[in-house]
Amino acid sequence: MAVYTDVTAEELADFLAGYDIGELLSYKGIAEGTENSNFLVHTSAGNYILTLYEKRVAAKDLPFFLGLMQHLASRGITCPQPIENKKGDAQGQLAGRPAAVITFLDGLWIRRPSAVHCAALGEALAKLHLAGLDFGRKRHNALSVDGWRPLFEHCRERANEVHRNLRELIDKELTTLKRDWPRGLPEGVIHADLFPDNVFFLGDTLSGMIDFYFACTDALAYDVAVCLNAWCFEPDHSYNMTKGRALLQAYTRVRALGDDERAALPRLARGAALRFLLTRLVDWFDVPPGALVRRKDPMEYVRKLRFHQKIKSVNDYGIEE
Amino acid sequence: MAVYTDVTAEELADFLAGYDIGELLSYKGIAEGTENSNFLVHTSAGNYILTLYEKRVAAKDLPFFLGLMQHLASRGITCPQPIENKKGDAQGQLAGRPAAVITFLDGLWIRRPSAVHCAALGEALAKLHLAGLDFGRKRHNALSVDGWRPLFEHCRERANEVHRNLRELIDKELTTLKRDWPRGLPEGVIHADLFPDNVFFLGDTLSGMIDFYFACTDALAYDVAVCLNAWCFEPDHSYNMTKGRALLQAYTRVRALGDDERAALPRLARGAALRFLLTRLVDWFDVPPGALVRRKDPMEYVRKLRFHQKIKSVNDYGIEE
Repeated sequence: MAVYTDVTAEELADFLAGYDIGELLSYKGIAEGTENSNFLVHTSAGNYILTLYEKRVAAKDLPFFLGLMQHLASRGITCPQPIENKKGDAQGQLAGRPAAVITFLDGLWIRRPSAVHCAALGEALAKLHLAGLDFGRKRHNALSVDGWRPLFEHCRERANEVHRNLRELIDKELTTLKRDWPRGLPEGVIHADLFPDNVFFLGDTLSGMIDFYFACTDALAYDVAVCLNAWCFEPDHSYNMTKGRALLQAYTRVRALGDDERAALPRLARGAALRFLLTRLVDWFDVPPGALVRRKDPMEYVRKLRFHQKIKSVNDYGIEE
Repeated sequence: MAVYTDVTAEELADFLAGYDIGELLSYKGIAEGTENSNFLVHTSAGNYILTLYEKRVAAKDLPFFLGLMQHLASRGITCPQPIENKKGDAQGQLAGRPAAVITFLDGLWIRRPSAVHCAALGEALAKLHLAGLDFGRKRHNALSVDGWRPLFEHCRERANEVHRNLRELIDKELTTLKRDWPRGLPEGVIHADLFPDNVFFLGDTLSGMIDFYFACTDALAYDVAVCLNAWCFEPDHSYNMTKGRALLQAYTRVRALGDDERAALPRLARGAALRFLLTRLVDWFDVPPGALVRRKDPMEYVRKLRFHQKIKSVNDYGIEE
């Protein structure tokens, strides 16, 4: 939640002169996004988002991210669409940073999604997966099973400060998942971070999906597992099967889940829970308690992980094996 | 630069249902304002700013601030205009905070104002002063001469960490200004903080003035002195007489400066420099060096103060005595 790079009106007006989107009328830094600097830009042609990519987003990945958003938008997915400048480039340079102008999407994110929202999300996720199948670029998922152990090394020593025996729990789970991680599942482009704050609604209608900066090539069912974790648990960390069923049924109506994917779902869900547990744990120790950035509770994902560890089959999530 | 209070889509939609400004389509926290939480709100009727007033803005002052903006707007001054809800109130309550919906103003602020911008500012300031003359409410300027000594007590001990002998410089200046402070000058509503980032331009045309949360009742010429400090010095802290003359001449074409005001201007300018020196100094020690909030350099105002101390008459600012 910050703007890391300062942009003057003069340099922004110069930059936008390279685009066909009218005259600059106003811009405001917005308090969103922990990775990049974002500005809401008002021109005589409408509202846009300007993103300056900070160091944590590797410049070499930008053609994947920007190309993906263009590809998905061309397939009818409502996601931010990078605007090409007069030279036909979606990626520019502003204030010493790679920069892109993207379309502004209306919509609101839902703090406590209902089963109706979960169904809309499931349908949109499946459509996203189908639309991504013919996208030409690939990007390795650095935050999948092989990346977790190195991540753990950053916070291993202090893990038990957060909870008794947390170090041992994670260590054991890493070993189990490394051994049992599902291989050979159908792959494609996944969003990999489709939490409620990245999905906009107008009323009960899903109006857009944003923040594709963790998108990568991986098992499509893993993306479903991320969403089960992010959308279908209550504030008391209990799994809501009505929501889970709504999400999964809506997904499978658009894209069938194969037997292999159904069988793998409990392990994928454990992996997804571990992935967010680990990044939250690293952030927990990186961010001093008094800082303005809000830390997210790693324990939420410990509880989700424990739930998935007890799952016998995909039946327990609300759909048939 | 922050959003201090979290607002959910659900509570914002409920709140806006009390207004006649269409359906909520989107809102983003904006990284502006060090005192309040601000959101850019998009509804089916257009763009608005939503402000939640945090603790530093006293609730008892809100009728003054909101009433002033309404008054000035009704007199043709382009400033944010509070929207009244269906009950006719400009002030509401949201997320446990006093809240107001105000009109969105297009425009850009100029980092390095030219003489043309200074002239536009001078003219707008004089019009603001005239438009405020028949505003019915009053608000004491807590940051004028009687408030400076208590402010200094907050940072007195550490002042010399910023610069050698700074404590002595301030102490002496406080004594001098307390003794010589101009009294009996024409008073009215002053903005009191009309820095370049509070003034919007579209091209060379001034399109709006914002942030009236330091506005109060005080000598009108003191507001001119604040603007001379804020607009007419170069990055090397030298006074630019061309800019000063442009500002003062444009001001006096709309509202004449009396002989008493002209004679008082050097002392008012010293006072204005001291006021911003002191608040910057207090902030300097309040904000830890590593924090995300950018601290403003108090030394800039030491240099301006020294300039004004050497001024013999208003001639040195660029207009006749």
